Amino acid sequence: MALLIGPKDYENEPPRHPALRINAKEPFNAEPPPSALVASYITPIDMFYKRNHGPIPILKDPSSYRLEITGLAPKKLSLSLEAIRSLKKHTVVATLQCAGNRRTAMSDTRKVKGVGWGISALGNGIWGGVLLSDVLELAGIPCYTRRSANGGKHVEFISVDQCKEEKGGPYRASVPLLQATDPEAEVLLAYEMNGEELTRDHGYPLRIVVPGVIGARSVKWLASIDICPIECQGFFQQQDYKMFPPWVDWNNIVWPSRRPLMDFPVQCAICTPSDGSFIKTGTTVKISGYALSGGGRGIERVEVSLDGGRTWIEATRLQSGRSAPSNSYISDVDEQREKWAWVLWEYSTTMTPPTTIIAKANIVVDSSPKPRSFNNSLNHIASAPALDKAIY
Amino acid sequence: MALLIGPKDYENEPPRHPALRINAKEPFNAEPPPSALVASYITPIDMFYKRNHGPIPILKDPSSYRLEITGLAPKKLSLSLEAIRSLKKHTVVATLQCAGNRRTAMSDTRKVKGVGWGISALGNGIWGGVLLSDVLELAGIPCYTRRSANGGKHVEFISVDQCKEEKGGPYRASVPLLQATDPEAEVLLAYEMNGEELTRDHGYPLRIVVPGVIGARSVKWLASIDICPIECQGFFQQQDYKMFPPWVDWNNIVWPSRRPLMDFPVQCAICTPSDGSFIKTGTTVKISGYALSGGGRGIERVEVSLDGGRTWIEATRLQSGRSAPSNSYISDVDEQREKWAWVLWEYSTTMTPPTTIIAKANIVVDSSPKPRSFNNSLNHIASAPALDKAIY
Ligand SMILES: [Mo]
Ligand SMILES: [Mo]
Repeated sequence: MALLIGPKDYENEPPRHPALRINAKEPFNAEPPPSALVASYITPIDMFYKRNHGPIPILKDPSSYRLEITGLAPKKLSLSLEAIRSLKKHTVVATLQCAGNRRTAMSDTRKVKGVGWGISALGNGIWGGVLLSDVLELAGIPCYTRRSANGGKHVEFISVDQCKEEKGGPYRASVPLLQATDPEAEVLLAYEMNGEELTRDHGYPLRIVVPGVIGARSVKWLASIDICPIECQGFFQQQDYKMFPPWVDWNNIVWPSRRPLMDFPVQCAICTPSDGSFIKTGTTVKISGYALSGGGRGIERVEVSLDGGRTWIEATRLQSGRSAPSNSYISDVDEQREKWAWVLWEYSTTMTPPTTIIAKANIVVDSSPKPRSFNNSLNHIASAPALDKAIY
Repeated sequence: MALLIGPKDYENEPPRHPALRINAKEPFNAEPPPSALVASYITPIDMFYKRNHGPIPILKDPSSYRLEITGLAPKKLSLSLEAIRSLKKHTVVATLQCAGNRRTAMSDTRKVKGVGWGISALGNGIWGGVLLSDVLELAGIPCYTRRSANGGKHVEFISVDQCKEEKGGPYRASVPLLQATDPEAEVLLAYEMNGEELTRDHGYPLRIVVPGVIGARSVKWLASIDICPIECQGFFQQQDYKMFPPWVDWNNIVWPSRRPLMDFPVQCAICTPSDGSFIKTGTTVKISGYALSGGGRGIERVEVSLDGGRTWIEATRLQSGRSAPSNSYISDVDEQREKWAWVLWEYSTTMTPPTTIIAKANIVVDSSPKPRSFNNSLNHIASAPALDKAIY
């Protein structure tokens, strides 16, 4: 037997790039330095953040692998890698982002449990594989199905790794059937990353990629897809990756009372210069970072302030190697933008005496101003769903 | 001839409720008092805001009416009211909101041109009619079409009113073909409002309702639907209802540089007590208002602060006559919520000395906290995309 298996120990971990910043060794959780993120629009595989909940699975004999489609699927399927690769190939550029990205900064406001991520628990990849909607059609579920004929409403992805949080069981997560069967949502069964076969750290031989959604739903080392009447009841869907109001704490939390996080929030982060840098007055500095929003909602613009938020200048946005100038909206050309991908942004300036740089991003939808802030400075923030700062 | 016509003058305006607050008489633009809004989940027709750009059209002989489907439709159609009513009836509860709602408050921050709306340029209606996606199927365009076989990518709705801004031409607006052909988007050709035939002020005999989108796209007195290769080039799509960055003013504005507003932003407003009320210390007061978000994204929770933003309490949310308690999330039950409708909210309390009441709403998606605010009070706002206040 040489099936895909999740080992019990860390004896067979893959090699990793020494520049990664390790947040936890076993399971291995690491992110690149922020400056590496903005070095390229497509994040190199070895610089892509690694997020694991157990030892990395092993597949010795690829010909032995089968993806099982089970549960409320009208037709059960058992697909070899060869069978999957013979289906129509689809490629999507999508940024994956851990729900815990920037958790360390969140904890400045209030202590958050979990791995202490910096600002680099995300990366932008080119994912190659087959559309989940195509595979579900083969299993007898047509495109755009909210509820299948026999009552399926969720699609659960089940891995083979041994997770402590699941008491040694595999990682699993689900998305609604409507999203899974929507070709426009581009949920992918990916076997390639950046044009190469998936590496073990990123889910070899097959993983899910759910564009625009927190990384926690993009299950790696996929073993089976279960069509279910209810949402995944596993730890990572029901007892992790949820947001609670400020008056909830660990003593009074009621896990089922809030929905699982799905689309990630709009983010805007400064990657260079690094936080707390000393820069000589008069030096020309390139301020750069990333901005992205969940659900494919896009980034309308990025603004930078060099005076602590008093005045703002629009930054240059870059996507897919092309510059998106400030007057970039062209109906229909625009629809071809890489909606699931981040934008990298930059603004070059000559540094003046000690200051705070702030960057903020506006998303494309829901970008109207929010009236009636209770003072003027708040109004800037009310219209700025995401911001980052660096102090000099 | 007794076709649907847009008169030149205001000799034949319909009667209106005297409680409406008139912002402009000709064309007639008016909104109800805020307290009337929270009096019922479904807004009565006579209390629904009226938004017009010219004299109200007249249809003397309903049997003469024809809706024309033209342009890049594979099959051209000319549909009588009888033909439209014979199609499968669809009902949707949706809040319509003028893009200019709260413009007066916006102008506290910066002067905005246009009708000076208060906080009541919105209403929640039950719309009855036929799905646009069903009608487009009859015209030869299948569901979920991004681009039709002959190059159609937008669906333009054309009225018959005489608008000054269009130099006497009719009001018109478009939505993308993909949205128009998506049954889940529930774009409606409505002939009923709250179970009654549409009134003249609200678009008799037929109007568009685009749920979750600014009212400006829900064209009234519909005469034709044109399948186009490009977005509507009319005034209201290209030179109005757009948002510009703070450094753009009337001297340097480049209209085509920004996209037309579509989904409206998250809103949260206090309707009672009214702004600037005097309330005796010790009186029990019901604080109430509405909250809604565009694009069907829902309202996760509403919070009220009685101490100027220092502490927050969750308000009770009401939708469809049912209470949505704070631990309201139940997977799948939840999907039946009225996603296009507002929630009304309330919180009763005993008033203490002069204070500022603030209400804020969080939307369901994109509700993760925004890390790294540059002071603590901003963090509240960064996680509060919409707020309102009343000063006592
Ligand atoms: Mo994650
Ligand atoms: Mo409007």
